[in-house]
Amino acid sequence: MKLKFGMVGGAGGGISPMHMRGATIDFMAELTAGCFSRNPEKGRKQAEEWGVRDVSRVYADYRTMAEEEGKKTGEDRLDFVVIVTPNDTHYAIAKAFLEQDFPLVCDKPLALTVEESEELARIARERDLPFAVTYTYSGYAMIRQAREMIEHGDIGDITYINAEYPQEWLANALVQTDSANAMWRLDPKRAGNSQATADIGTHIEYLVKAATGLSPERVLAKFDHIPETLEMESNTTILCQYPNNVTGLLWASQVAIGHECDLRLRVFGTKGAIEWQHQDANRLKVTKLGGPVQYYSADSPYNYSESVRLSRTNPGHPEGLFEAFGNIYRSFMEILKARKEGREPESFTYPTVEDGVNGVKFVQACVKSNAGGSIWVDVE
Amino acid sequence: MKLKFGMVGGAGGGISPMHMRGATIDFMAELTAGCFSRNPEKGRKQAEEWGVRDVSRVYADYRTMAEEEGKKTGEDRLDFVVIVTPNDTHYAIAKAFLEQDFPLVCDKPLALTVEESEELARIARERDLPFAVTYTYSGYAMIRQAREMIEHGDIGDITYINAEYPQEWLANALVQTDSANAMWRLDPKRAGNSQATADIGTHIEYLVKAATGLSPERVLAKFDHIPETLEMESNTTILCQYPNNVTGLLWASQVAIGHECDLRLRVFGTKGAIEWQHQDANRLKVTKLGGPVQYYSADSPYNYSESVRLSRTNPGHPEGLFEAFGNIYRSFMEILKARKEGREPESFTYPTVEDGVNGVKFVQACVKSNAGGSIWVDVE
Amino acid sequence: MKLKFGMVGGAGGGISPMHMRGATIDFMAELTAGCFSRNPEKGRKQAEEWGVRDVSRVYADYRTMAEEEGKKTGEDRLDFVVIVTPNDTHYAIAKAFLEQDFPLVCDKPLALTVEESEELARIARERDLPFAVTYTYSGYAMIRQAREMIEHGDIGDITYINAEYPQEWLANALVQTDSANAMWRLDPKRAGNSQATADIGTHIEYLVKAATGLSPERVLAKFDHIPETLEMESNTTILCQYPNNVTGLLWASQVAIGHECDLRLRVFGTKGAIEWQHQDANRLKVTKLGGPVQYYSADSPYNYSESVRLSRTNPGHPEGLFEAFGNIYRSFMEILKARKEGREPESFTYPTVEDGVNGVKFVQACVKSNAGGSIWVDVE
Amino acid sequence: MKLKFGMVGGAGGGISPMHMRGATIDFMAELTAGCFSRNPEKGRKQAEEWGVRDVSRVYADYRTMAEEEGKKTGEDRLDFVVIVTPNDTHYAIAKAFLEQDFPLVCDKPLALTVEESEELARIARERDLPFAVTYTYSGYAMIRQAREMIEHGDIGDITYINAEYPQEWLANALVQTDSANAMWRLDPKRAGNSQATADIGTHIEYLVKAATGLSPERVLAKFDHIPETLEMESNTTILCQYPNNVTGLLWASQVAIGHECDLRLRVFGTKGAIEWQHQDANRLKVTKLGGPVQYYSADSPYNYSESVRLSRTNPGHPEGLFEAFGNIYRSFMEILKARKEGREPESFTYPTVEDGVNGVKFVQACVKSNAGGSIWVDVE
Repeated sequence: MKLKFGMVGGAGGGISPMHMRGATIDFMAELTAGCFSRNPEKGRKQAEEWGVRDVSRVYADYRTMAEEEGKKTGEDRLDFVVIVTPNDTHYAIAKAFLEQDFPLVCDKPLALTVEESEELARIARERDLPFAVTYTYSGYAMIRQAREMIEHGDIGDITYINAEYPQEWLANALVQTDSANAMWRLDPKRAGNSQATADIGTHIEYLVKAATGLSPERVLAKFDHIPETLEMESNTTILCQYPNNVTGLLWASQVAIGHECDLRLRVFGTKGAIEWQHQDANRLKVTKLGGPVQYYSADSPYNYSESVRLSRTNPGHPEGLFEAFGNIYRSFMEILKARKEGREPESFTYPTVEDGVNGVKFVQACVKSNAGGSIWVDVE
Repeated sequence: MKLKFGMVGGAGGGISPMHMRGATIDFMAELTAGCFSRNPEKGRKQAEEWGVRDVSRVYADYRTMAEEEGKKTGEDRLDFVVIVTPNDTHYAIAKAFLEQDFPLVCDKPLALTVEESEELARIARERDLPFAVTYTYSGYAMIRQAREMIEHGDIGDITYINAEYPQEWLANALVQTDSANAMWRLDPKRAGNSQATADIGTHIEYLVKAATGLSPERVLAKFDHIPETLEMESNTTILCQYPNNVTGLLWASQVAIGHECDLRLRVFGTKGAIEWQHQDANRLKVTKLGGPVQYYSADSPYNYSESVRLSRTNPGHPEGLFEAFGNIYRSFMEILKARKEGREPESFTYPTVEDGVNGVKFVQACVKSNAGGSIWVDVE
Repeated sequence: MKLKFGMVGGAGGGISPMHMRGATIDFMAELTAGCFSRNPEKGRKQAEEWGVRDVSRVYADYRTMAEEEGKKTGEDRLDFVVIVTPNDTHYAIAKAFLEQDFPLVCDKPLALTVEESEELARIARERDLPFAVTYTYSGYAMIRQAREMIEHGDIGDITYINAEYPQEWLANALVQTDSANAMWRLDPKRAGNSQATADIGTHIEYLVKAATGLSPERVLAKFDHIPETLEMESNTTILCQYPNNVTGLLWASQVAIGHECDLRLRVFGTKGAIEWQHQDANRLKVTKLGGPVQYYSADSPYNYSESVRLSRTNPGHPEGLFEAFGNIYRSFMEILKARKEGREPESFTYPTVEDGVNGVKFVQACVKSNAGGSIWVDVE
Repeated sequence: MKLKFGMVGGAGGGISPMHMRGATIDFMAELTAGCFSRNPEKGRKQAEEWGVRDVSRVYADYRTMAEEEGKKTGEDRLDFVVIVTPNDTHYAIAKAFLEQDFPLVCDKPLALTVEESEELARIARERDLPFAVTYTYSGYAMIRQAREMIEHGDIGDITYINAEYPQEWLANALVQTDSANAMWRLDPKRAGNSQATADIGTHIEYLVKAATGLSPERVLAKFDHIPETLEMESNTTILCQYPNNVTGLLWASQVAIGHECDLRLRVFGTKGAIEWQHQDANRLKVTKLGGPVQYYSADSPYNYSESVRLSRTNPGHPEGLFEAFGNIYRSFMEILKARKEGREPESFTYPTVEDGVNGVKFVQACVKSNAGGSIWVDVE
């Protein structure tokens, strides 16, 4: 029996089809209700496109949806709700659905302030509601392989972390007429008090967490406004202090010409090192101390089973961004299914609401560090 | 309104989930009927997993399905049927559904003999039924970009073609206990009189066609049985003569250790050259005479629109095999939708039943050439 | 007529054969005198191996050599002297030869203190003596291509710089018995008060200068002792402020497993970006705003002539480290030749004694920044 | 004591500086005599540039040089002679010097006919004269590593060989005014009856031999004249039958736009595979059955000592074409030195006159196969 889910947001957005594909790629769930637009006509069209059968479950405002869906029980009840609205609305919407006891999937960032994000986490914790925040890139099978290798001690103790996420789109957008997308993100009212750090720096921060289990204790950030006329930073360089005095270096840019979505992670240890690049997402570079460079390929039998089960094809057949989304959804839904069936879930992991809170804290610490002239600032 | 489709085969198979994902990734179609297994219990389970709502449309044999579904009309009628059964059954099943006037999607190879494949093509032609054969790799957006560039003369006249598809899985399978998959393919009764050539050589042959529009007029083949104990070839080297005396070189192997699914295509012209590699599927290497090597990235504005519309994300976000399947399905379904809506379809392309026939002819010509000691043999 | 040169140091060293190859690869100079070792027997053997004809010009101490060679004139006089002794001896030796009016080539670092290095620069300036400091990697033809492109405005105004030099050798050396080389570098008495920053961080600093013309005004450094037992840093992360508020990020490591000599430079501008990697030294990644990634290949006609003349073979034939050394030597010697022949030299560039001074200042500023807890420190 | 060598040819040529660098890069030999040009003035200038001290040993014709140098003995006698003249003169010159008992280094091809090349081999054999033919690419350290791995059984029994050498220069040259180099090679009178096969196909043929020890027993070739107006082939595709029924596939092209000197070798075995690419000359891709892809790096301790001793720097510092030349020269000269010193030489290998004979035979068999319509032709 497929799980049932609802969605808030989606009509006309670029991110909602990714969520739809992520939620359905493994045939585990079907879209059953939604508030896709405040415009009823647009909402109905979206519902039809995505195959929502019962039009009475298509709403024009999220509060009504939360209330009405909250009343349903048994077979009719939604198993979870997905929030894909603009960043500044996540908090209110998430809160409304948590209060109706729905497990949630929410796009990142979880909220614009630490207080709001902590409140959401508190409610979810109190009501014991699974809550995934879609740090997409953490869904790749080889990131899970990295995590398993590190946990098994395959590269020894971590000594240094270097991660980056250079993009070029903003440099292009600023010289193009069609820069609506750029403009939305450049508006502090919609996006918060940080741009590159909040938008993609936080992806790096969580990718490090997903691969290593580590979160920074202190940060030292330098923001660059490129071009100078931007209100918020488009380029950010961050030194991190991780537990055990491990230094990390994070760099994110939206004006790095020559790079598209070139997320790259390197973790060095006393016995070896791993490297993952988004451009080559289905492989992991692994080097053992004194040995040659190796490339582990997804789904290969020498990988840990936790990684292998996140692959859907044979080694060498590429899986991409939608499949990474799918892995977050699958892991989240496996928990829900196990609960419904009254059994222990297998060890699936996904980015949780706590990770979402950490992300917001991380960004705010970076903002504070930069404002102070690149000084060390504690996270929290 | 979504298109409705049925499926023959699928339960327990490795290829059917790919077809399911390909058919549904763009929210254009829903699975409505099927004969997933001769075992009714297995069939029902598969139907449930994939969300077939009406259990009366789940069948245990394909003949009944063809008959019963053939009677349906209007909203109830399936828009197309997908065939994902073992190779030696394609012919009979396809014929049964064509005779009920269903457009088809069939896995490759279309059939085991030239005669059978030609008969299918004839029926489809006479009844004007769209018929796609899933040469998967041709679905990548950058293959379409290659085709457009070549058609627009961007690399001048084609001078030489070099394409290869090395895999290593059989070398691994032969030393593993779990080699059921290998064994199926190694059995001439199920797989026909060729293995590497029919299984993956034909993928290369069509990839060349998809990118260049060219089919070989003559072939010269050398088959290798590695290890010697194999009944059929696991490695095949083929010289092709294309129109205008263009030489092509194709190599396919299932025992090429160090290669997973490393399909690679190089087309050289008088003014430039293009290269595509499956490992880097979202980019196309493009070199203009006298200029530096360039890498075109999928979805970028400098690509032809026919390629751009086959991308679903932003440049730099990888799309993989399922999305390539999705592009074949989408292009096929766009034709069906346009017909239903009584309008001209846009210029979408997909591998057709004629391409399927050519594939079978190509394999048989290679078999004959090899048997003759690597002599030139006309295709057809 | 070949130039004549002398050498101080060399017997048994790993770096001296590189200098020998660099000096002679273009048939422009011959080794004529030297003080290769304090051990006369070793010195003679080295002289014989390298083909010094006149044994009376082989010395056992550099002071005698400076004095005796300083007396020679005309055809007999050395055109320049090369210093390849341990770091802590550069100052005294260089001073001795400068005072005899010899142009010099000295290994980096120029000296261990700012004062000493500035004194050398002053003497060279006062006596108008060409003085090269061998920041080897700056010699690659594609670094010169980068410089020309930037000077010609091909990538617009520089916006951000990211450069790194990760190595793994120290991680390996620390677990091996044969770690004499490591140990020498780990001794503050021989190496000064910095290890990774002075040894390889300074290579990055100058590579940026060679490619962009920019030197940092302020630095903020974080040193890591990996493993903790090391007296000096083996890993260093440095934020730089370049002129016009351009931020730069430099990372150097000697314990980055999986990296050999993976120097990498990325310079971003308002109109484009360039990237150079040591692993692929004969190519330059060039991206123009809105265009595809391109790879410029050394010696190709689309490169600037200043780059092309630093290549010795056809495009595609790799040149390596010795040839990079050779380019520094050639550019230095072209100046000497032009002076001898009383003509204006062509526009050859090489790292000068001033660059050597800057390198020492840079390292000392980093040491100070790190000691202060990663604070901004002015360079100078 | 350095070895002494003479050279025939060189003035104005592009290949002679490579030989000079190869011969002298390890400080083992010095140029002592030569016939650099038939023009005495040019010859003298070349002699001066290269530092020949005794002008009486600079000749304007090779016969005089052979005679005069042949009379010298003891310390004065040349240890070997290098021939770098156009292809059609190799035979006569080599013969003249062999008859004076000089060991030789000769550029490839050894001669234009099988008969001539066999005669040279016979004389060298009878007189026991070491004779190297500079198949340059075989000199890379990682080709030697490949050979050692194969000989030690690291990849099991060889099953298939795929090698290629695509270049683009001719495509460029044909549209450029400065095509003297192209034209020389396109003239059958100077170049023999084959162009791409003789010029670069033979490099592939020997590279396979150097790495595997195997030479083809039969060939089947297809020549392409691209453009059609060329008198000789610019593109060649060759099937080879190696001992033990191993199939090999060789492709060479001078009109493959997008490729510079992209020599690539793949050898597959029952237990693993190796791959070497000229663009990445200091690494070897090694895959063991069932394991991940690995990249062995030159000079690393896990390589065989025969490979390590052909590296001059640390792992990660690239060595290029001149160093590959140097390795052939060094291996050749080590034999000469050992003979002079009356000791057994270490196991150095270099391409010999017998390999040169094989190269000529290979080309002639390909010419015959192509003329017959791509039929199998025995080599010899």
